[in-house]
Amino acid sequence: MDRAAVQAQISRIAARMAREKDRGQVARYIPELAQVDPQQFGIAVAPIKGEVILAGQAEQPFSVQSISKVFALTLALSRAGAGLWQRVGREPSGDPFNSIVQLEYEKGVPRNPFINAGAIVISDVLLEGRDQQAAIADYLAFLANVTGESQVAIDPAVWASERATSARNRALAQFIAAEGNLRHPVEEVLELYFQQCSLALSCAQLAKAGRYLAAGCREMGAGPVSLPVSRARRINALMMTCGCYDASGDVAYRVGLPCKSGVGGGVLAIVPGVAAIAAWCPGLDEKGNSKLALEALEDLAQSMSWSVF
Amino acid sequence: MDRAAVQAQISRIAARMAREKDRGQVARYIPELAQVDPQQFGIAVAPIKGEVILAGQAEQPFSVQSISKVFALTLALSRAGAGLWQRVGREPSGDPFNSIVQLEYEKGVPRNPFINAGAIVISDVLLEGRDQQAAIADYLAFLANVTGESQVAIDPAVWASERATSARNRALAQFIAAEGNLRHPVEEVLELYFQQCSLALSCAQLAKAGRYLAAGCREMGAGPVSLPVSRARRINALMMTCGCYDASGDVAYRVGLPCKSGVGGGVLAIVPGVAAIAAWCPGLDEKGNSKLALEALEDLAQSMSWSVF
Amino acid sequence: MDRAAVQAQISRIAARMAREKDRGQVARYIPELAQVDPQQFGIAVAPIKGEVILAGQAEQPFSVQSISKVFALTLALSRAGAGLWQRVGREPSGDPFNSIVQLEYEKGVPRNPFINAGAIVISDVLLEGRDQQAAIADYLAFLANVTGESQVAIDPAVWASERATSARNRALAQFIAAEGNLRHPVEEVLELYFQQCSLALSCAQLAKAGRYLAAGCREMGAGPVSLPVSRARRINALMMTCGCYDASGDVAYRVGLPCKSGVGGGVLAIVPGVAAIAAWCPGLDEKGNSKLALEALEDLAQSMSWSVF
Amino acid sequence: MDRAAVQAQISRIAARMAREKDRGQVARYIPELAQVDPQQFGIAVAPIKGEVILAGQAEQPFSVQSISKVFALTLALSRAGAGLWQRVGREPSGDPFNSIVQLEYEKGVPRNPFINAGAIVISDVLLEGRDQQAAIADYLAFLANVTGESQVAIDPAVWASERATSARNRALAQFIAAEGNLRHPVEEVLELYFQQCSLALSCAQLAKAGRYLAAGCREMGAGPVSLPVSRARRINALMMTCGCYDASGDVAYRVGLPCKSGVGGGVLAIVPGVAAIAAWCPGLDEKGNSKLALEALEDLAQSMSWSVF
Repeated sequence: MDRAAVQAQISRIAARMAREKDRGQVARYIPELAQVDPQQFGIAVAPIKGEVILAGQAEQPFSVQSISKVFALTLALSRAGAGLWQRVGREPSGDPFNSIVQLEYEKGVPRNPFINAGAIVISDVLLEGRDQQAAIADYLAFLANVTGESQVAIDPAVWASERATSARNRALAQFIAAEGNLRHPVEEVLELYFQQCSLALSCAQLAKAGRYLAAGCREMGAGPVSLPVSRARRINALMMTCGCYDASGDVAYRVGLPCKSGVGGGVLAIVPGVAAIAAWCPGLDEKGNSKLALEALEDLAQSMSWSVF
Repeated sequence: MDRAAVQAQISRIAARMAREKDRGQVARYIPELAQVDPQQFGIAVAPIKGEVILAGQAEQPFSVQSISKVFALTLALSRAGAGLWQRVGREPSGDPFNSIVQLEYEKGVPRNPFINAGAIVISDVLLEGRDQQAAIADYLAFLANVTGESQVAIDPAVWASERATSARNRALAQFIAAEGNLRHPVEEVLELYFQQCSLALSCAQLAKAGRYLAAGCREMGAGPVSLPVSRARRINALMMTCGCYDASGDVAYRVGLPCKSGVGGGVLAIVPGVAAIAAWCPGLDEKGNSKLALEALEDLAQSMSWSVF
Repeated sequence: MDRAAVQAQISRIAARMAREKDRGQVARYIPELAQVDPQQFGIAVAPIKGEVILAGQAEQPFSVQSISKVFALTLALSRAGAGLWQRVGREPSGDPFNSIVQLEYEKGVPRNPFINAGAIVISDVLLEGRDQQAAIADYLAFLANVTGESQVAIDPAVWASERATSARNRALAQFIAAEGNLRHPVEEVLELYFQQCSLALSCAQLAKAGRYLAAGCREMGAGPVSLPVSRARRINALMMTCGCYDASGDVAYRVGLPCKSGVGGGVLAIVPGVAAIAAWCPGLDEKGNSKLALEALEDLAQSMSWSVF
Repeated sequence: MDRAAVQAQISRIAARMAREKDRGQVARYIPELAQVDPQQFGIAVAPIKGEVILAGQAEQPFSVQSISKVFALTLALSRAGAGLWQRVGREPSGDPFNSIVQLEYEKGVPRNPFINAGAIVISDVLLEGRDQQAAIADYLAFLANVTGESQVAIDPAVWASERATSARNRALAQFIAAEGNLRHPVEEVLELYFQQCSLALSCAQLAKAGRYLAAGCREMGAGPVSLPVSRARRINALMMTCGCYDASGDVAYRVGLPCKSGVGGGVLAIVPGVAAIAAWCPGLDEKGNSKLALEALEDLAQSMSWSVF
């Protein structure tokens, strides 16, 4: 990877995004997110080896929201293995991230682990054999491990805000419970889910956190994460087909890389064998993905000729 | 690409598939397809450069059915450009290949060009400025071009069978027409659609036909196809997210390559920068994809460590 | 029935409706219907015994459209009996009159005989043992019989218009055929369906035509129609639950009588044991029912204290 | 009304139902209901004037379950008036009683007050201006009033059972809350909902409770309920189109009377101007309505020639 070329491209992109007028809409359904300044933009590229490359507000922490679903799935797969797929599918849903329709047609088995319903089932898996405090501790330890930083943390204000405005997620969880696909009390599962979504990371941290998906265990050097390359590939496949809600097909077409977005405005993208990228801009498009973060990734991928295809 | 390794793997796989007892169900909805011998299996790998590598009944022609949608889309994109995406989406549908439900909710705009409804719109695009005979001639010329063979042909018996058992596709086309998304007479559009689906190719021919997606125009040598690499990448992206109906997510997870399947039992897979693969076995799984062709691709991809992720 | 009171009420109502500004939208999807003058309004009450009572343009013929489904069902029930209910349901659909969604979920068995899909199956039943010409002749003979008039006729301009703008109905019919629920060629079934919808009647004629449902065979005097009272009651029940598309519940609530509407602006209502009522005004509400015809029926039912409840 | 004829018919029907082998399935989703003896059958006819007429186990209390929705709606309409219809529709849903699909498509406005989602909104209305204890006291006072009995009561075991197995109803309530269609805390609304469903009445009591719908205020004598006849008619209309879930059309066709069923096996039917009928038999058909109670009502309606049509 040509570090100088990457630095030049992301600096250019950050400048371009700073000027952009049409920035989408900041998520309003959680009060805490609605207060974020929409002018901000950050981008970071973490090569498999070497230092992370930054542009814009790449060190400003933001709420990762649904991007956390990638980390939760990684943990859940390492514990439950392929048996997990009895309880959650791996197909794109064709519906918005918080839809309950498919849950009814498919009897409480969510379409994939990257929509809210699926991530709630994953939270239930993460409670297996430990209480909620232990489960969140494990989750944070995993993040500390993959980012190589000790200070990764839950944002307490966002967490409180999630909890207070949670009716739709409560509906999803109750519905899954009604169909017999939760093993722990609904409230406990939701607590873990809300807490995990409230993780705050900067672009720099998020890009570093994603490196294990770019590298697999083969190439990641001395790091403590041991993930078989086949598992990294499969998580990337899920990000590609299901990572951006009902715009996943469009993102695959435009960006050509596995991506996972969050309503906090962040997007994590993986260039297998090369690097992990994190882009962040709070305004969302009508599908709930960051408008400018996606445009930045499209621009960068094209400029660097990064595409899995 | 290690030709000897590939030959060894596909020979092993062909032998394994010959022994397999559980072969799925041959498609019954077109009488002509129902008569195909389910014992057959073929596989072919066409490297970007060099001869195609074969195993099993790789030279036995079969009905490509929906795999033809890849070629039709390629032609339509080269003519209509990005304006095409006003008339057909690029998202996974989450529904079976012949579903009419989403058409109603989305007012006659099919979810993607790889479900029947979407391919019917693509046929309409291919009729722009020419009659049906000219349109099918162009289509066959394109195939002759990409395969490098002059004898690619429509199977008249399958064509007649398609036409005679076409009620569901007629319903889709009428519905799209009712919503104003067809510009030519329904019957003409359907004729082209049925004809194009009735293309017969062997695995060897199909793999050669797919090379332009593996290479883009950059590397394909003296061939007459000139496809910008960005377009090849985008077609691959669509194959990845939408190529195997409502099992696309599952196939991405298991195989890790862009694939397009047909109810004739064929699957085309692309290893970008390396090769195109065609596998064929008539029996289908419950989602309408060839059971053993997918297992063969999963096996080969894993053995060769081929994955876009 | 107090004839003078009825006359007073409907004259008052006709005067009120003539003044009404907000008249809804004339149906535009059939060109012939789009040309009808929206200022017109007619109403007629046909008591079980005695002359029909008229107000407004009650002798102006209009296109009955879906109201014809009541007569077609009556004929089909008298021929096929309860076996009919294997091929069409008797539940409200909860969806618009021309929806195709439920057809897919319920495998080609339409929800009820009063939505388009259901009436197409009824047309297929009416072709049993006779060709299309004989079938339409029988249908017109039935109408002549129940109205006591020989000149009831199909409007050829509307018929031609229906045929020419029929894509959605063709889609429905093809879909039903694809699911194996049609026994005659799709084109023949549709011809009968279009022809039957194109029947032109005045309010006076339509009200007379409906008397057999108000009376059953018990009380209808010397007329030639012999319909068991239990069958009349059941057709009324279907009109109540399914007669006004996805506004049937609302109409039952507001009017309290079994009603069947058509997109030509007509509504037939039944006061069991008392009279049949026809009201007509071309402008439709957003559910496809005549805005002012329904208001007129609501007003009349309340004024006369006519309600089945 | 010929009392002797009614007594003869219901005695014959009770004897017939005692012999019936195919009794459907007792509701299993609430443990308390699953323990009810399926052999029981009761029927009661309450004429507008005069004593109630009984047969079978007509004095055995059972859980009225969804039949309570009729009483809750009556109270809510008397308080909120027509404004209620901004928050809940009056169309048949076409879906099962506990479906959440339509709630999503229609943004938290339930289709009608007789499906669970609609009744939850009604409970919210009943909490307006009073706490949950006052609300349930009002509800019981209304029941005491219409039945003329002071001992009507909630069954505490059923109530506890409802609460403990309430995930699906919790999901519905949370979803409605998420769409902004609840004004009180979800838990409070659900408590009232569960309590009201747990009302225990015998057929004799239930038939008496229904008389106000058969009579309107005009004819009901000295009773303390004052319900305008127009309101009674409208509640009857809703029972006709929406009272038996997605079998409402079928019940209208077969029985011809407004009916409301409950999963406890009871059905309340109204013969306007004549009587209210309660039938009870615990076994349900696949739509969740009592199999034999409906057959009994069909038999009785036919024998007495009772039909609104």
